[in-house]
Amino acid sequence: MSLLVTGSIGIDTVETPHGRREDVIGGSAVYFSYAASFFTPVRLVGVVGDDCPRSLLKVFEGRDVDTRGLEIRTGSKTFRWHGSYVQDMNDAVTVEVDLNVLAERAPKIPQGFLDAKYVFLANTHPVLQQEMLASLDSPRLVVADTMNLWIQTEHKELCKLLGKIHGLVLNDGEVRLLTGEKNLITAARKVLKLGPRFVVIKKGEHGSLMCSDRGEFVLPAFPAEQVVDPTGAGDSFAGGMMGYLATQGTFSPSTLKRALAFGTVVASFTIADFSLAGLQAATRDQIDDRWHEFKQAMNF
Amino acid sequence: MSLLVTGSIGIDTVETPHGRREDVIGGSAVYFSYAASFFTPVRLVGVVGDDCPRSLLKVFEGRDVDTRGLEIRTGSKTFRWHGSYVQDMNDAVTVEVDLNVLAERAPKIPQGFLDAKYVFLANTHPVLQQEMLASLDSPRLVVADTMNLWIQTEHKELCKLLGKIHGLVLNDGEVRLLTGEKNLITAARKVLKLGPRFVVIKKGEHGSLMCSDRGEFVLPAFPAEQVVDPTGAGDSFAGGMMGYLATQGTFSPSTLKRALAFGTVVASFTIADFSLAGLQAATRDQIDDRWHEFKQAMNF
Repeated sequence: MSLLVTGSIGIDTVETPHGRREDVIGGSAVYFSYAASFFTPVRLVGVVGDDCPRSLLKVFEGRDVDTRGLEIRTGSKTFRWHGSYVQDMNDAVTVEVDLNVLAERAPKIPQGFLDAKYVFLANTHPVLQQEMLASLDSPRLVVADTMNLWIQTEHKELCKLLGKIHGLVLNDGEVRLLTGEKNLITAARKVLKLGPRFVVIKKGEHGSLMCSDRGEFVLPAFPAEQVVDPTGAGDSFAGGMMGYLATQGTFSPSTLKRALAFGTVVASFTIADFSLAGLQAATRDQIDDRWHEFKQAMNF
Repeated sequence: MSLLVTGSIGIDTVETPHGRREDVIGGSAVYFSYAASFFTPVRLVGVVGDDCPRSLLKVFEGRDVDTRGLEIRTGSKTFRWHGSYVQDMNDAVTVEVDLNVLAERAPKIPQGFLDAKYVFLANTHPVLQQEMLASLDSPRLVVADTMNLWIQTEHKELCKLLGKIHGLVLNDGEVRLLTGEKNLITAARKVLKLGPRFVVIKKGEHGSLMCSDRGEFVLPAFPAEQVVDPTGAGDSFAGGMMGYLATQGTFSPSTLKRALAFGTVVASFTIADFSLAGLQAATRDQIDDRWHEFKQAMNF
């Protein structure tokens, strides 16, 4: 089924204990789209400036990603992020960030995309997320991500958004900030009261936790010895999860569990190399094999 | 099968966001013994001073814990620990610690205990751990715990111990300190080269990781909303794990997995109340029910 994602497309510079990469492709929508396209066709909505090298945008060539919603805005500059994991592989230090085109008006969703049934609203201003959602015809499953900035500065708009979506994906620090609760299950239950039917909390190397009115589900991360660059792990996780869900047509607890496990596995490929290289080296067969390995390992 | 534990018995004062308890029973051997006794008879070896209220030592009444190895040393004072989890439920701040009798000679292992087949050497000086091990007849499975203090000050003796045991249980910070490796799987593999056949890394609320020459196994913590006092969680985990293993007679990967899951579940009862109260309120049936629930939840 059609899966639409709106989010950032960026040019990253990343430093980790394994090295440094300058001006590589990044951004939430990029990782999400690539990850989800292992499972289902993806419609990408995002905007870059005219400074963005065309070579960077070629990452989707040969992938089932419809880039008609990718706007190259003349006179604007592409979002840039420079992060370092040198001190802590679980927590990026932002060395520099230039919102650039992300601080301008949102990209337009193409007419042909408006009937999307599965929607992922990657992290951006909650007013923009609501606007994009309002422009869609009749989505069946809408999941959003957010970040500390909006939790702190746009709490009211964020709560309005939460009343309109089915699922929220965020990390442990964010859900604690959003709810004021330290215990993640208590925090997740508080979020459910704000609207979403399920909440997925990403805990990085410690895995993930899903909470719905049908109960909780916890999953460790895939045990990875080779962690080269954690950038995009969370967005790849969301992409794998949503990509799988879009092929299922049901959101039963067991489907959500399997989706979470696919997200976990896809993210394990992302972190094995810099930028998109880990995902680019992966195949759907490898993902399925690792998923079965993970499932087997969880079985006791 | 006979399971012997040597470790600390203490009088604790604990503060958490849920309250404060003064002069309650604690210590690694106490939590371990109580937890393991849900599964198998336990032989407890430890020492307290003559200041220890007899009421505290009554916790094992009605349990299958043989306390003939519990020495009440005249003229000595019991180990005391005062810890606070007020700032962080995952990391105790030690407000005060008095080793007292733990800084004196080790307790003697009773003659009738020397044929124990399963042995857990809870955290103490690695020279003492080696001495106790040397005095036993022919244990089939020896697992030890350790701590930062010995890793830093008694590295050589600790390495000698590692060459003599089958399993090591320690937390994530400790294994990183021991090996100098940040990645837990890399760290665990380094430990395996020092002797043990398996390593279990406890990650508190983030679960546990087992590494052996047969591969890795990761397990989240049991999703607990009610965390009142984390004291003794790690020792209860080890007790549940070893207690189950002592009933099995095999250390196959699947047996170790199930043992890890029992440890996880038993620890989830411990943290639900102060001191031993969580474990005291639990029954074996409840543990088995929660184990099956956990197994089911891990199944996707």
